[in-house]
Amino acid sequence: MKDKIMIKTSSGSYPVVWFGEMAPLAKSVESMMQNYHRSVFFLSYSIEKIYGKVLDHFFPGVKRLILPDGEKAKSLRITEEIAVKLTKDGIHRNTLFIAFGGGVTGDFTGFMASIYMRSVDFIQIPTTLLAMVDSSVGGKTGVNLKTGKNLIGSFYPPRAVLIFPGFLRTLPDREINGGLAEVVKTAVISPSKDFFSYLEKNISGILRRDPAILSELSYKSIMVKASIVQKDEKEQNIRAFLNLGHTLGHAIESLLDYKGVIHGEAVSVGLHFAAYYSKEKDYLDDHTYLRIRDLLISLKLPYKMEDIHKENKLKSKDLAVNMQKDKKVTKSRIRFVFISGIGRLLLPQEVNENELVQTLKKFKKAYQTVIVQE
Amino acid sequence: MKDKIMIKTSSGSYPVVWFGEMAPLAKSVESMMQNYHRSVFFLSYSIEKIYGKVLDHFFPGVKRLILPDGEKAKSLRITEEIAVKLTKDGIHRNTLFIAFGGGVTGDFTGFMASIYMRSVDFIQIPTTLLAMVDSSVGGKTGVNLKTGKNLIGSFYPPRAVLIFPGFLRTLPDREINGGLAEVVKTAVISPSKDFFSYLEKNISGILRRDPAILSELSYKSIMVKASIVQKDEKEQNIRAFLNLGHTLGHAIESLLDYKGVIHGEAVSVGLHFAAYYSKEKDYLDDHTYLRIRDLLISLKLPYKMEDIHKENKLKSKDLAVNMQKDKKVTKSRIRFVFISGIGRLLLPQEVNENELVQTLKKFKKAYQTVIVQE
Repeated sequence: MKDKIMIKTSSGSYPVVWFGEMAPLAKSVESMMQNYHRSVFFLSYSIEKIYGKVLDHFFPGVKRLILPDGEKAKSLRITEEIAVKLTKDGIHRNTLFIAFGGGVTGDFTGFMASIYMRSVDFIQIPTTLLAMVDSSVGGKTGVNLKTGKNLIGSFYPPRAVLIFPGFLRTLPDREINGGLAEVVKTAVISPSKDFFSYLEKNISGILRRDPAILSELSYKSIMVKASIVQKDEKEQNIRAFLNLGHTLGHAIESLLDYKGVIHGEAVSVGLHFAAYYSKEKDYLDDHTYLRIRDLLISLKLPYKMEDIHKENKLKSKDLAVNMQKDKKVTKSRIRFVFISGIGRLLLPQEVNENELVQTLKKFKKAYQTVIVQE
Repeated sequence: MKDKIMIKTSSGSYPVVWFGEMAPLAKSVESMMQNYHRSVFFLSYSIEKIYGKVLDHFFPGVKRLILPDGEKAKSLRITEEIAVKLTKDGIHRNTLFIAFGGGVTGDFTGFMASIYMRSVDFIQIPTTLLAMVDSSVGGKTGVNLKTGKNLIGSFYPPRAVLIFPGFLRTLPDREINGGLAEVVKTAVISPSKDFFSYLEKNISGILRRDPAILSELSYKSIMVKASIVQKDEKEQNIRAFLNLGHTLGHAIESLLDYKGVIHGEAVSVGLHFAAYYSKEKDYLDDHTYLRIRDLLISLKLPYKMEDIHKENKLKSKDLAVNMQKDKKVTKSRIRFVFISGIGRLLLPQEVNENELVQTLKKFKKAYQTVIVQE
């Protein structure tokens, strides 16, 4: 494994660098800080509790801004509050913002960096597997509206992404699984089929959270994502492949009001459904469908509706209607990414709502233990 | 006069087009609308009152979003409110936003376009002279914080700027003057000295608001601005020339809490002061200083503090302190753009606060009728 990938964007390129220890990462951050008048860490309350002392040690005297935990940080209200605080502290354009945390912190900090005084530079130091394999790279930033997630945001690449898998030692198992779901998705869309096979061969290593293997997953995932976002930075065509499994995933999260479910769990079931639907449409052969399903099962990831919602009460019709609300949808129709093989995807295509509802019902029925009448 | 200028930006180029009639402008907008699923006009309450019927006539059935009048539209609170409204109306990415109004509407709409669903396209149809000569071009968007103006925003160029000087017929005289102040500033920084001479030769035409001359002023100003923003889109060096007169201008507006003064009036006095300060520092010869001052006087633009604030009570010290708050300031010092001749500017340089205060006092004393002790 190499320890660096350069990501090209329309406005220059930035490195993603892996570190085996905290000290060299800190040194690298420090040398970047030299180019700015000031630096500010953005981190959640929980991360401050875990890593506050580590940051004190490595970055004494560097300002830290504490965000509320979870998705509620991602709002325009908090954006305004924090921006006012920054201006009161005399933070000017020549400042480096540092997102230290998971996807929420990265999304928020990147958005703030893109609009604070018409933009300041920022870097990402992801502390979750999800951020290390996916969200820290690609330049998407955003906050939520009460009408939906990430409806406000920008494409604004960081100056660098610094990854230290050691942070995963403090990450709850459920969050690791959330990241793994995106890893499986990434392996399915990877043009090289080796990534998927690598996962199949390393199930036990992944289950025991072997640090070397998790680091490798981060590297391989970012490689795939980098090659896609470089070809389609603004999501006009193939970047949509990254949304594989997310159409249903988002609908599940939204119907549950983002409660009791984490993003990766919903994506995991969404990914299984995308494979199932692809098989039903005869785009995907049975054998490959089963490989995808069985990998999810072997990795102990959610793969059926019940894994997320015990009572299995999410109605297929409601899910389908909710799938229209995705912002990538043009003209309020449902567009879906299908799989035709490992590494082979079909560009998003419109699906018939009725067909989708029937397929959802069939999917739920095929994988249910709790019998629910719809 | 030609009727089109192309503005190059890092993310493509866009045209600024002048129209002699409303009908061809409407036709041009309509043909752009064809490329989008939907279109939305953004306009202020006042502009809706004046032009609502015109828009009904030319664009029947096209959605219009009404903003509060004045600077109070430019807030994150209104941004959120409008964004929620847009999502509820099912407005997706494939939509054209149309800013129809002055600088505030352009700044707000551009900002909204830059962050709504991670960006949608927008065009500008300026209705004020200020917007026709300055703010509609250059890609700066923004909203205010309670701690200052335009502290939140983005660099986000429109897809096109369509100018119909006929809209100026309904513009209050005071607003015309506000635009003229930016015109004089632009003529001072124009590398070709002809623009400044043109103004000197056409004073009576300008004073009687001759439409052909106002149109020419718009064209000449955009030419100058275009050449500057093309060389320095993100304000790293020469774009700062556009801030000539704005350091004091912003401080005046801010100290008056943006009440009883319009932007162009504050800039007009700020421009005079920039010339005065340049003369005091021996950067500018007396003759050129007087040409600048006398042009402002001939055009009946504010040139002394009293023209803005009758009681002349703004303290020099307070003004100087406020000039530090500008976001272009690094390390909280005061940077100032000096003039060394028509078309000859010095890159922003740091000034000594004490020297600045003394110069402000001298300037006020030289041009006061109301005697105020500081």
